[in-house]
Order: sequence, then structure tokens, then C-alpha cells
Amino acid sequence: MNHPFDSACALDSVGPGRYRGHAPAAYWNMAGPFGGTTAAVLLRAALLEQPDGVEPVALTVNYCAALVQGGFEIDVRPQRSGKSVRHVSVELVQGDAIAASASVVLALRRDTWSCQTAKMPDVPPADAVPAMDAGERLPWLQRYEFRFVSGAMELQAQPFAEPRSARSVLWVADSPRRALDHLSLAALCDVFFVRVFQVRGTLVPAGTVTMTVHFHAAADEIAAQGDSPVLGVADAQTFTRNFGDQSAQLWSSRGRLLATSTQLAWFKA
Amino acid sequence: MNHPFDSACALDSVGPGRYRGHAPAAYWNMAGPFGGTTAAVLLRAALLEQPDGVEPVALTVNYCAALVQGGFEIDVRPQRSGKSVRHVSVELVQGDAIAASASVVLALRRDTWSCQTAKMPDVPPADAVPAMDAGERLPWLQRYEFRFVSGAMELQAQPFAEPRSARSVLWVADSPRRALDHLSLAALCDVFFVRVFQVRGTLVPAGTVTMTVHFHAAADEIAAQGDSPVLGVADAQTFTRNFGDQSAQLWSSRGRLLATSTQLAWFKA
Repeated sequence: MNHPFDSACALDSVGPGRYRGHAPAAYWNMAGPFGGTTAAVLLRAALLEQPDGVEPVALTVNYCAALVQGGFEIDVRPQRSGKSVRHVSVELVQGDAIAASASVVLALRRDTWSCQTAKMPDVPPADAVPAMDAGERLPWLQRYEFRFVSGAMELQAQPFAEPRSARSVLWVADSPRRALDHLSLAALCDVFFVRVFQVRGTLVPAGTVTMTVHFHAAADEIAAQGDSPVLGVADAQTFTRNFGDQSAQLWSSRGRLLATSTQLAWFKA
Repeated sequence: MNHPFDSACALDSVGPGRYRGHAPAAYWNMAGPFGGTTAAVLLRAALLEQPDGVEPVALTVNYCAALVQGGFEIDVRPQRSGKSVRHVSVELVQGDAIAASASVVLALRRDTWSCQTAKMPDVPPADAVPAMDAGERLPWLQRYEFRFVSGAMELQAQPFAEPRSARSVLWVADSPRRALDHLSLAALCDVFFVRVFQVRGTLVPAGTVTMTVHFHAAADEIAAQGDSPVLGVADAQTFTRNFGDQSAQLWSSRGRLLATSTQLAWFKA
């Protein structure tokens, strides 16, 4: 039986650069599926007809409207293919309207000088941190193991009297476990709860409008992580006039920065 | 006479959603024009046919190939227009090939709860910091006033023995001065020298492949800055296998976070 993440990324070819997929019930969120699987299926479509060795280095996903249950189509259009870098544009159409789009930068990565200036936080190992009880209400929460080191979300009926820190540090993995790849890494970048909930301590109408992922690890380095949890660090800089940002880092268990992301989420009131 | 930045953003309508512009000699860099003006002209095209009050909140620019001297065309395609958020796709074509593309998120911004969690660095005022001598070699350097508080670039024939900090803090303004708007703010997000030069202390073949800007200030808040320099903070997290990242903040002189950006730059060797 397929892992639910692979089922969520399943695509059938229906023409040149055109694929058909299905909004994944197993990853359903409050309105539509978890944005991480949408990011992953758009990325997968961009990769399907690429030559061997071409890997994603950057992905921007624009969430134009909530997906509804049922099928969708994805159109892939190469924009430019240079010697070492390729640009691809992808659109997800549901019911004659664009529900999501992505731009993907791909490259053949070679060994170069390297230098990691960011430092992984000093945290206990994943198996020393208890897993969050995901409850049974939201399917997508059950598709991940969340082990909060700090900044677990506390929700109340009323907002906190003073805004709290936007920072969360957690070990996170697919549930059931699945070997990490670029697709699941893209999805993991969207696994952090909307920062406006975190800072205010209450739910407000909100949703991510755009997410950008930078992949800092190549396929062999990502594969080395296997199915062990990655360390996620999420934070935010500002919330104002309907929009708040979020930045995230995803670290391998050995302290390698695998991916970073930023996103902008709309919120109301 | 027009400000050179406005000339760089000038577009003539040549059909529905189609515009003609010109690669700006006044902003020429080593190969092609400064990426900031390319970002600005793509953003301007996305804004041209929007209703009053609609403002940019996010912009991702993909640099597919260096622009060459001469004209270009820009195609604007609305992807989805919701009640409060709009998504627009933009492509810049030169010589029958896509040289740059952008996705733009637009919104009508309203007053909401707000909270700025990021803090502006404590720095001397702009007029207490000497301006860098931009030399006469690269036109685009002469279009900006760079006042480095820390992390001014030091270039040598040979790389530093040990990598240095990727962080730079500087006051920066258009030269000649120009009142700040969303377009110049987008361009300013690309004004930081490629971080791989900064860390290694030497020039290597390099170029930005993608940049994402989040606008945290609305038009009235940006206008309040006038033509005073903004404080830029640039940093990086990692450089590996041909790619290095960059994050940036742009602060108003009064400590308001106006925009943040991330980019990924290709480098060789």
C-alpha cells in the first residue's frame, strides 16, 4: 500500500506537460487540503519530465484559492533551460480556475566551496521529546509526528493579553515514517502552524497566500536523513494590515541545514 | 527630467496586458542590468491595470537569463482575483525567450491587529555614516547611496583564509534621492552585494536566480519615509553545491519593518 504522502503526490499524464491528480482527503485541513501537499504535488509535476540529475533548488507556491474535494489538473511549462539552471512554471487548475501556481528553479548541482553560517539550535534528540497528541479532528495533523522542544501552540477562546514569541522549535516527521526527499521536505516547510495563532493564542480567519522554499541539500544528502525526524525552527518578523510573515529552517539530525522557507499568511481582524 | 529609476520602470502599452520597456543602461551591472530594476518593472506591470487601493504584498522574481541591451516585452496575466487577495503572473520576454518572470500577490490592506516582533538594529543615523565611493565602473552602483554601518565588502584577488560573516548593515537610498514607493522598495531588496563575495572576499562567477519580497508596509506608510535612506540588513545561512542564500530586511528610519526578502544565488567553484 502506498504511503499517504505518495498518494497525495500521485499524478497521471493526460497530455504533454499536463497531469491529473486528486485533492488528498488524508491531508485535509480546515478548508481544503494541507498546503504542504499542494506544494509537493506542484513540485513533483515540475520534476516529472526533467533529465536525470536535475534537482529543485527553489520553489515558490502561490495559494490562489482553497482546493475542494475531487480531481485537479496541473500544467507544466518550461520557461528557460540554461546550461546549469532551469526555470519551470506550474499551474494547478480545479473547476476551470487556477487554485495554485508555482515557479520552480532546478539545477544540476556540483560540488563547490561550501560554508554553513547558520547554526542548529542545541536541542534534545527527537526520541527524548514527547509527541503531540494530534487529536482526531484534522486529518493532516495525523499525517505528522510533532515533537515540540519549545513554542508548542496554546489556543484559547480569547487572545493572550500580550503577544507571545512567534518562535517554535520542534522535531517533525511523516506519520507513518517515510524516507525524506525533496517532495516531503517541501511539504514540511508548511507544517508550522500559522504564526498569527501562535503569537495571539487564538484562532482567527487566516491562510497562507504564498510560500517560498530554498533547498540547500541535494538528493544524496537528503536521502542520508532516512526517515528520522528533522528539526524545524519557525519564527516571524511582523504582522500588520491583514498579513503576517513566517520563516522556517529544516535541519537534519546531524546539523545540516536542508531547507529554509518564508511565507506570507493573510489574516483577518 | 525623469528620475533614472522611473525611466527604468517606464512601460508602453502595446495590447491587453502587454507592455514594452527598455533594459536600463543607467543601471547596468556586470552582465545585464541590476536585478532590482528588473524586479521593479515586473512589479509595475502587474500593478498597471489594478483597481485603486490594490497594493503588492508579495513578489517572487525568477531571473532566467541576463537581459541584453535594448527593448523587451512584458506579459501580465491575472491568475485569480478573490475578495481580498489577487494573484498575477508576469513574464518578461526578450528576443523570443523568457528572460525573467514574476508572481505577484496583491491585496486591499485594511487596519488589523498588528505586532512587529523583529527589532531594528541600533545604529548611528544615516548622515553620521560616510557614503561609499561607488567608483565609475558600474553604472548601477552610482544609482545608490551606500552608507555601510558594518559588513562593507572587501574584495581581494585571493579568498580570505577563513570565511567572514555574511552580515551587512547599511543605510541605502536612491541617488539622486527619490521618494520611496513599492517599486523602489522591491529594487532595494536586491541592492546587497552577492553574499558569496562578502563571505569569501573575492569575486567568483555568480548571479541571483530567484528573489522573493514580502511588503510589510502599505503605500501610506512607505510614503511617510519620503526620500530618506532606509536601513538594510543582509545575511546568509548557507552556501553549498553552486547555491547560496540571502535574507534581507529594509527598515524605515523610524524603526518600522518595511519589507523583507530572501534570494538564492548561483555561484561557481
